[in-house]
Amino acid sequence: MPTLYHSPNTRSSRVIAQLLLMGKLDQVNVVIVDVVRNDGSGRADPNNPHPEGKVPFLVTDEGEEIRESAAIMMYLDELYGAPLSIPVGEKGRGTFLSWMMYYGGVVEPAMVAHFSEIRHPAMIGAFRTMTEVGECLTKGLGGKQFFLGDKITLADIIIASAFQWAPHLTPDFDNVKSWFNRVNDALDLEALQAFEARGMETLKKAI
Amino acid sequence: MPTLYHSPNTRSSRVIAQLLLMGKLDQVNVVIVDVVRNDGSGRADPNNPHPEGKVPFLVTDEGEEIRESAAIMMYLDELYGAPLSIPVGEKGRGTFLSWMMYYGGVVEPAMVAHFSEIRHPAMIGAFRTMTEVGECLTKGLGGKQFFLGDKITLADIIIASAFQWAPHLTPDFDNVKSWFNRVNDALDLEALQAFEARGMETLKKAI
Ligand SMILES: N[C@@H](CCC(=O)N[C@@H](CS)C(=O)NCC(=O)O)C(=O)O
Ligand SMILES: N[C@@H](CCC(=O)N[C@@H](CS)C(=O)NCC(=O)O)C(=O)O
Repeated sequence: MPTLYHSPNTRSSRVIAQLLLMGKLDQVNVVIVDVVRNDGSGRADPNNPHPEGKVPFLVTDEGEEIRESAAIMMYLDELYGAPLSIPVGEKGRGTFLSWMMYYGGVVEPAMVAHFSEIRHPAMIGAFRTMTEVGECLTKGLGGKQFFLGDKITLADIIIASAFQWAPHLTPDFDNVKSWFNRVNDALDLEALQAFEARGMETLKKAI
Repeated sequence: MPTLYHSPNTRSSRVIAQLLLMGKLDQVNVVIVDVVRNDGSGRADPNNPHPEGKVPFLVTDEGEEIRESAAIMMYLDELYGAPLSIPVGEKGRGTFLSWMMYYGGVVEPAMVAHFSEIRHPAMIGAFRTMTEVGECLTKGLGGKQFFLGDKITLADIIIASAFQWAPHLTPDFDNVKSWFNRVNDALDLEALQAFEARGMETLKKAI
């Protein structure tokens, strides 16, 4: 059984959302750990093997260590038959890979810069801003239900996770806003919240 | 034939290096375009369909548009039988995905912050610094030839590309430095330079 190091209500929550949607949460050993949060609370947990004390972190049955949400999500999807991706060789594969890389390589840096009001030309040069992110998302979605068509994939889950965390940053385009609602409807957010609440209890007891 | 929008001596050069190593450069239609460079020279090329005027950008036979180097590299590798990756389901797949995501999601932002001397706590919180990158690389390599073992993969090509661009930032660890030389030896950098020189000529004529 793979082991997922997770902390409630963080960037690892999207991996829990994925596992809930796949019906595979019981096939992963979820270890609740503490992390340093944005408000300074929490701590790097000695039980967390991530080299920088971050979550998510996954250790596979073969002992491979996987960092980065998008990598963990793709690995878990592939492990269980690729229900939430476009498999290798199929139409849409390139678009799928593009969105997965775009999320970590552009959306996160642009969002961090936005939040911390870093307007350095080198950051804008490399990652542009949330304005370009919004334009890219509305154009990429077009009239489709999800980024890859009628089927929800990891691309939707990881991109939507940014706006679940910061709803006011959801790009102000009708198709993006209705896509966001559609993703939230598809995910079992109630079950996620219940899982996260239990995780918080576990964390409190551990302290 | 897929079309690659490329500009000489930029982030898209690593895709050319990959195609040379795979012996597939002649199976891709490479369109040379101009880009705005760090020194302010160049321009966003009207012939480049990338929404932000960047390179690399790939358009597949089916008309799919792929942005982000790591996505383009994975797509081209998969298209030609996955010679430079660990295929889905094989040992090392999780580690491979981890390095591919780590590059764009951590190494690039940490490097941009380093170069532009942005030392904002939010950047360090999200991406850490080149110090942690160095530690992650030396630990990940260990005593191996390449990140995935004896075989060079896209993970080596994309991570080494950062230090080809900024050699003085190569982490000061013996195993990282000898790995870097090994990757450069494995790549046909002479053929790459010749290709880039011809690209530069094409660009000059177009202006
Ligand atoms: N790029 C990483 C980011 C991971 C990350 O920064 N996670 C946060 C949780 S929201 C964390 O663990 N922060 C604690 C820390 O940085 O010490 C990913 O997507 O997996
Ligand atoms: N994350 C992207 C970065 C692409 C990128 O920034 N490319 C540079 C070339 S070194 C570029 O096109 N710059 C021109 C510009 O930003 O206008 C990737 O790896 O593909």
